[in-house]
Amino acid sequence: MDTRKRLQALQRAASPVASASMALDAAAVPDHPACMIGSGQRCEHALVDRDLNRLLFDYEQKVRSRFTRIVDVLKRISTYQHDENFTERAQQHAREQLGFDLPSQVLEDAWVCGLDLSALHSRCTFSSLKSCVENAQAEQAGWRQRMPLDENFLRSCGYHTVDISPCSDGRLQGVSPYVLRILPGPNVWVKAYAGALFDVEVDVSDWAQREVERLSGAMVDGERLNYLKIAVYHFSSSSPNGQGCAAHGSNDRQATEAALQRLQHELREAIDRTFGAGAAPDVLLIGVDTDLDALRIHLPDGFGEVNPHRYFETAQIYRDTVGLSPEAARARIAEIVADAEGMGGWGQGNGSMREGMRRLVLALAEANLSQIEYVIKHHTGRYATIGHDEECIVAGEAVRVLQLRNLFYFAHLDTIEEGTNDMDVGINIFRKLNIAHGLPVPVLVHFEYDARIPEARERAIARGRRVRDAIQARYSDLVAPGLLNCAIAVSDRTGGECCAFVTDDVGGHH
Amino acid sequence: MDTRKRLQALQRAASPVASASMALDAAAVPDHPACMIGSGQRCEHALVDRDLNRLLFDYEQKVRSRFTRIVDVLKRISTYQHDENFTERAQQHAREQLGFDLPSQVLEDAWVCGLDLSALHSRCTFSSLKSCVENAQAEQAGWRQRMPLDENFLRSCGYHTVDISPCSDGRLQGVSPYVLRILPGPNVWVKAYAGALFDVEVDVSDWAQREVERLSGAMVDGERLNYLKIAVYHFSSSSPNGQGCAAHGSNDRQATEAALQRLQHELREAIDRTFGAGAAPDVLLIGVDTDLDALRIHLPDGFGEVNPHRYFETAQIYRDTVGLSPEAARARIAEIVADAEGMGGWGQGNGSMREGMRRLVLALAEANLSQIEYVIKHHTGRYATIGHDEECIVAGEAVRVLQLRNLFYFAHLDTIEEGTNDMDVGINIFRKLNIAHGLPVPVLVHFEYDARIPEARERAIARGRRVRDAIQARYSDLVAPGLLNCAIAVSDRTGGECCAFVTDDVGGHH
Repeated sequence: MDTRKRLQALQRAASPVASASMALDAAAVPDHPACMIGSGQRCEHALVDRDLNRLLFDYEQKVRSRFTRIVDVLKRISTYQHDENFTERAQQHAREQLGFDLPSQVLEDAWVCGLDLSALHSRCTFSSLKSCVENAQAEQAGWRQRMPLDENFLRSCGYHTVDISPCSDGRLQGVSPYVLRILPGPNVWVKAYAGALFDVEVDVSDWAQREVERLSGAMVDGERLNYLKIAVYHFSSSSPNGQGCAAHGSNDRQATEAALQRLQHELREAIDRTFGAGAAPDVLLIGVDTDLDALRIHLPDGFGEVNPHRYFETAQIYRDTVGLSPEAARARIAEIVADAEGMGGWGQGNGSMREGMRRLVLALAEANLSQIEYVIKHHTGRYATIGHDEECIVAGEAVRVLQLRNLFYFAHLDTIEEGTNDMDVGINIFRKLNIAHGLPVPVLVHFEYDARIPEARERAIARGRRVRDAIQARYSDLVAPGLLNCAIAVSDRTGGECCAFVTDDVGGHH
Repeated sequence: MDTRKRLQALQRAASPVASASMALDAAAVPDHPACMIGSGQRCEHALVDRDLNRLLFDYEQKVRSRFTRIVDVLKRISTYQHDENFTERAQQHAREQLGFDLPSQVLEDAWVCGLDLSALHSRCTFSSLKSCVENAQAEQAGWRQRMPLDENFLRSCGYHTVDISPCSDGRLQGVSPYVLRILPGPNVWVKAYAGALFDVEVDVSDWAQREVERLSGAMVDGERLNYLKIAVYHFSSSSPNGQGCAAHGSNDRQATEAALQRLQHELREAIDRTFGAGAAPDVLLIGVDTDLDALRIHLPDGFGEVNPHRYFETAQIYRDTVGLSPEAARARIAEIVADAEGMGGWGQGNGSMREGMRRLVLALAEANLSQIEYVIKHHTGRYATIGHDEECIVAGEAVRVLQLRNLFYFAHLDTIEEGTNDMDVGINIFRKLNIAHGLPVPVLVHFEYDARIPEARERAIARGRRVRDAIQARYSDLVAPGLLNCAIAVSDRTGGECCAFVTDDVGGHH
């Protein structure tokens, strides 16, 4: 727990009302909701990859520790800001504890009006993100090679591209590698929107560009492959009305229906009616219980139509199959999935889902048992912080190598004009998380480019500056008192440069 | 000439400096710059379609008259605004002269603070646009069926789609039917940007969507057809430093190079490098002398690469071939084009342009002779108003049935955030044209939708409102005193509803 969180915990403890309601919450829900077993039994499922979980947890701890230490270091150096040799001492302290230098100008100006801790906090957040990116290859190597749903597996299910739209909410930002155990790579796109309400026109354009590669023969095995769109909504089982999806007023039925409407009625119809019936990509609708990282998977029928009432839940699967042998558990999972297919719609003759989709759904169900046990073993069965706890906002396009629960709030957008709502939701989260405690909101504006294309990097940087300017214009009330700091970074989507900060813009207005 | 223009002419005449410089301009350039002939000869070229020119001129006059009358009617009704039965008299007057009703609330409120002529002027401009759209089928039928470069002809040249990006400048807004004699239709897209500096990412997306139709077999004859991108820059032969393209400081070499860079180095490379060499669309670069509507056509080589120095000019062709028989003129044109191909680059072995492109270029050259003679016969050889003279701004997507020189300034955009520069240029033009005379700027925000797609109309309207709001926020200094009025309209791109005004939004803030 970093100092900010420790402070928040202390404040909650100091408030009798808040602590009473916490106690009530704690009493009303079981400790290990996904794993209610008899005495003598252990919460160890035969299908869980415990080695993978350990590697993922090591990685989680490494990343978190970079942010946890920021407040401690800043508080410490603040105590001797008026001493002689302050700059040298502070830099040494930062290098030892954080692994990077602080901006020396900020340190050198401290004698005038005191140390600008607010600016330093944002700069340290950006520098820590940078460290995460720089070390990603080394730190992720272990878990990346054990990830079950890799590119080959997805291709074996019939998918050349998986386009995932979770909610922008920080709790969903580890959804690909952790919750779904899908290996992040160039074939996996994460485009987060408040309420998982993705932009249909953007998706049609993204789909069409992949479709050209497929149809032109540029894609290996393209003739048998398809595009898969997954929308991921979320809810909180222990606090259904308080910690669900803010964009849908914590109403998970509304979240489900809105996402389904967009997948089915808008995206699939748009493509089918424009490019001919049958052109539409496959779609899948998944809900995540962000307390447990357990899934609710809604099943498509033989025509690819998703029925909101035809679903199964992996927490139930965990409970039903813990203690079984791998073979018996797999057989039971297949039964549960088949039973779910029989719910609503089966009788209407649309048949069961296609084989590739079934293969994917069974793999998702099994892989998520590992994540459920990850939360049981490494996070005491339910996350200690079931609500928001993000370190910053990312606006623009995903930084592919950064995916972790509550690391950031992510608004996928091209312009603030279109993404206003997604940004407003994010800023409001940070008004409570940071601004209420005097800390600024760090916003990383990030775009990708294709290094093979002339001027693409320049255009990505120009887009970053345009979005940065629009953010600063929209939240000028926060920019003026130094409560919002932007940085711009760009990545080559073909694999070269990764999250390179545009130097003259790091730290935004400071 | 409408009253606004009459006023401007009077003001110019009253200024000795302005009228002296006008006289100088007039002396320095010939009366019919495209047609300098011996006595006894007539400016009648054998390849000109004079019937088509008459139909186009009838249409031009009909459209212009709708706008010309607005100021006269408003001045007239203003004189009796305090009379009894004012509303009835004014409405009768408007119906007779303009063909539509005025907004009665504005008339009825006149007794309080006087008639709001500023609001009425914008409302009348929008109503006149609406009349043009409603009568388009009847009024355009004649010239539409005589237009030489129709969809079949373009397909015979190998092009399923022609995507034209002229400058946003009003003088280019008749470029397709008048200057190029290309029949506006669903296969012809006009996307105007200040300086013709089109958005590469938008074009890649548009290209990809057509490419999916082509590759999937949904397009008839798709296997032999291609996409053609034309960039159209402009210059003024009589006032090269004053009435050229403002976005390029009236420097036509800069305009040429910037457009070529975007076509060749950015668009073609982006597609070739992403989707494989040879995937890039054909491109063509055309300059328009907006005094004469004459063309400068830059020729591609055998690989489709355009060389800025390999071009010919149609004004020269007109002068060289006037008086020749059709056959002799055509043969001479083919020679001139072949000579142009020999300029720069020929020796480098890239060969001459592909046959379909040659067919198109020869047709464009011949068709433009009609437009040159149109300006000679119907506009005294050079347009009386060689500069800006637009009636309104259109922002968003083109209203396909509205294409006429100086009818509007057109900024193709999805968001004001991306189109800021294009809008700023337009607003600055109207600061001089309208605001300096106390008249507001009418801005029509227009988007297309596909009626086959669920929710597409609703999304187009939402987009229109978003852009309208962004315009009002950016130019709030004009909105407050009533000097900027927005209306929103949507069209079904599959051919149903055309430029339907979103009722509750007509007239913007008034």
